[in-house]
Amino acid sequence: MQAPFRSDSVSLLSSIGHPRERTASGVLSPYHFKRRAIGADDISVKITHCGICYGDVVYTRNKHEDSKYPVVPGHEIAGIVQEVGSNVHRFKIGDPVGVGTYINSCRNCDECNEGLEVQCPNGMVPTINAVDVDGTITKGGYSSFIVVHERYCYKIPENYPLALAAPLLCSGITVYTPMIHHKMNQPGKSLGVIGLGGLGHMAVKFAKAFGLNVTVFSTSISKKEEALNVLGADKFVVSTDEEEMKTLSRSLDFIIDSASGDHPFDPYMSLLKTNGLYEIDYWKFHWWDEIDTRNVGVLRCQQDLSGD
Amino acid sequence: MQAPFRSDSVSLLSSIGHPRERTASGVLSPYHFKRRAIGADDISVKITHCGICYGDVVYTRNKHEDSKYPVVPGHEIAGIVQEVGSNVHRFKIGDPVGVGTYINSCRNCDECNEGLEVQCPNGMVPTINAVDVDGTITKGGYSSFIVVHERYCYKIPENYPLALAAPLLCSGITVYTPMIHHKMNQPGKSLGVIGLGGLGHMAVKFAKAFGLNVTVFSTSISKKEEALNVLGADKFVVSTDEEEMKTLSRSLDFIIDSASGDHPFDPYMSLLKTNGLYEIDYWKFHWWDEIDTRNVGVLRCQQDLSGD
Repeated sequence: MQAPFRSDSVSLLSSIGHPRERTASGVLSPYHFKRRAIGADDISVKITHCGICYGDVVYTRNKHEDSKYPVVPGHEIAGIVQEVGSNVHRFKIGDPVGVGTYINSCRNCDECNEGLEVQCPNGMVPTINAVDVDGTITKGGYSSFIVVHERYCYKIPENYPLALAAPLLCSGITVYTPMIHHKMNQPGKSLGVIGLGGLGHMAVKFAKAFGLNVTVFSTSISKKEEALNVLGADKFVVSTDEEEMKTLSRSLDFIIDSASGDHPFDPYMSLLKTNGLYEIDYWKFHWWDEIDTRNVGVLRCQQDLSGD
Repeated sequence: MQAPFRSDSVSLLSSIGHPRERTASGVLSPYHFKRRAIGADDISVKITHCGICYGDVVYTRNKHEDSKYPVVPGHEIAGIVQEVGSNVHRFKIGDPVGVGTYINSCRNCDECNEGLEVQCPNGMVPTINAVDVDGTITKGGYSSFIVVHERYCYKIPENYPLALAAPLLCSGITVYTPMIHHKMNQPGKSLGVIGLGGLGHMAVKFAKAFGLNVTVFSTSISKKEEALNVLGADKFVVSTDEEEMKTLSRSLDFIIDSASGDHPFDPYMSLLKTNGLYEIDYWKFHWWDEIDTRNVGVLRCQQDLSGD
């Protein structure tokens, strides 16, 4: 359904991006394209940094078979405001700002009114590879600048390194939101983190900052050094080690599953305490296809399964 | 696994029950059997009332193919203390008390120590059709009295009608616990209740007492009168009415699914708001077999699925 969005667009400005060609080779190359002139509520952001997240890989390599080439990836955008529209109140030129996974929504529903624009039932518009309300295909942060309605921009504190801020805009918020929603910020509680990619490493960092006891699960021993010595996790477990997995039975308050590869839930569900919570926090084309008998066969009484 | 429970049993006393014969006919008939003499920590309860719950039907009719005939059903037991062991501190003769779904546990694990004996990982012992630690088969409340360790008995307030207290011991606590755990006691929030049997009608009663707005879903219009006029629900919906279901899209904060018959989750999941919770609150042999792609195909982001 096409939502009755207001349009921000009047004309186009030039930007330089690094899109893929029309193949799924994964090779990026320079590409010139135009962005709209800033509307009254827009800001223009000179992009200084942009994270690399799995969603960028998905569209670059056409993994969901819906890539709209030429794709300009990048949805963990950090930069400096270089122009503001006449109605813009929250930003001024020179402000450090971030832009995340979406750049439009209906602005007129319960979710939008509650600051949950990402859940807009009329359809939020992702920052890359999406059809915006003006019919253009959204192009992301692997480019020189971006024009965005100020509603979808976030202030970055002065002196906070923009290179470190960028990954917070997608992988950061994606683990932070459910962690706060499910009260995973209680010091002393135990958290298991499955997978140590973009989301997983953020989960470990937040959890240690919150004072949790963190166990990282990975299929690969190669992640051990990073988990323990770089990110400060308390324990590292190779998930195929059945003996070690058994020793952790009913020991965890929470699990964040950030592993996008196919895997069963059962070996992990049994590690949760009563009232434990298994948080599904990764992205598949239809990730919920995972939730079948094979995967949640041991969902016990007084356990929660959450999709965030 | 047989847990290293303490045994309460020394010898047997006579009791009269109404078990089934060794067929799955569903016909109950008088049956004389013995219960153990009360141990130091036991009380003997003269049973005045006992609820009828789906679990009783399951074992009476051998629906799970593990009935240990002769079965004495009944696990929503209310009565009067008629004898107490020498170490019993919480009860005295004449007290009105209740006994629920389990009558033993290991008493030495985190769950038992936290008052969650029902989740005892070493195996709680159900009130009916289970092998107790002394090797006897547990026999329930369709009988003249029961002998139980005081730990698994609950005081009923003086003057509270025992006939009304009995159903609280299983169906009542089964909906009350997740309702409190998931904060379904916030006045003004909206709750959908699927099914209006033992659990469902309790959910409606608690919810109205909490000040919630309650919608009852049933496949049968025959439940409408009871839902609205007897239990005080605010709305009744025949779940096969697709048009009416559509009007409720994203309108509910919580759903309690108490319908034990096969049914898909999808039509209900779409009725939940963002951050809504779908509570699975019924009993099947392996009820989690329900949780497959067909049933949770629309589990959205920021929604929870809970097994309680």
